[in-house]
Amino acid sequence: MDRCFTITAIGHVESPLLQREAAPKQGEAGAPVALLVFDAAVRDGLHDLKVGDNLVVLTWLDRADREVLRVHPRDDRTLPERGVFSTQSPDRPNPIGLPRVKILSIRDDLRFEVQNLEALHMTPIIDVKPVLPGAAEA
Amino acid sequence: MDRCFTITAIGHVESPLLQREAAPKQGEAGAPVALLVFDAAVRDGLHDLKVGDNLVVLTWLDRADREVLRVHPRDDRTLPERGVFSTQSPDRPNPIGLPRVKILSIRDDLRFEVQNLEALHMTPIIDVKPVLPGAAEA
Repeated sequence: MDRCFTITAIGHVESPLLQREAAPKQGEAGAPVALLVFDAAVRDGLHDLKVGDNLVVLTWLDRADREVLRVHPRDDRTLPERGVFSTQSPDRPNPIGLPRVKILSIRDDLRFEVQNLEALHMTPIIDVKPVLPGAAEA
Repeated sequence: MDRCFTITAIGHVESPLLQREAAPKQGEAGAPVALLVFDAAVRDGLHDLKVGDNLVVLTWLDRADREVLRVHPRDDRTLPERGVFSTQSPDRPNPIGLPRVKILSIRDDLRFEVQNLEALHMTPIIDVKPVLPGAAEA
């Protein structure tokens, strides 16, 4: 069985969130409006996205520490360490974010304005999937 | 900005689902009980998983076609083609599955029996995250 796989970004995030310290933690309110900017190579896959769609954006958390297996939840050192697979920490062996967003407007066929995106400026986008009505997930 | 990233599997699925054709489609009922088997290298990250936990298992869909940008939803050729980013198709540029499971039992510190796993036998596992109470996602 193959153990290693290569992911190629299909786009990136443009956001006013410039630093990890400024990013809202899970459970805090208010990620800003941001832009999903896709590469022309994947244009054919984007046709059916429309305003109001709820999406999960798979992001590659390129500023994460991939060597970490135990963390203090929410970077709070007063909380006991936990295994990363029981947390939403960005620091983990394969650092993939799963923020959920809603499309607010479509600027052009490659640029989508979205609400509530928890991702830093220039974070690579690796996939986008629709949220199924009634599906509850992480 | 880097465009390519290397993912290393942290484990694999053991399941009675042997072929893609036999796998339940999104919306159909009943994926079987299966096993998440992790590599010893990530043992330290698993300590806090417990029976009853709801998890999203990020899987690498190693039998997917990565060249596809338009598909017939649910492989049904009577439905019009859609851009893959508006579907849950496994065929997409970076084929990552997000099945949601519940831990039924813990066989040992690396092997977890789970309910309702939509993934083929020997599918690589690349990450596991807790489902947050009340969080709805794709």
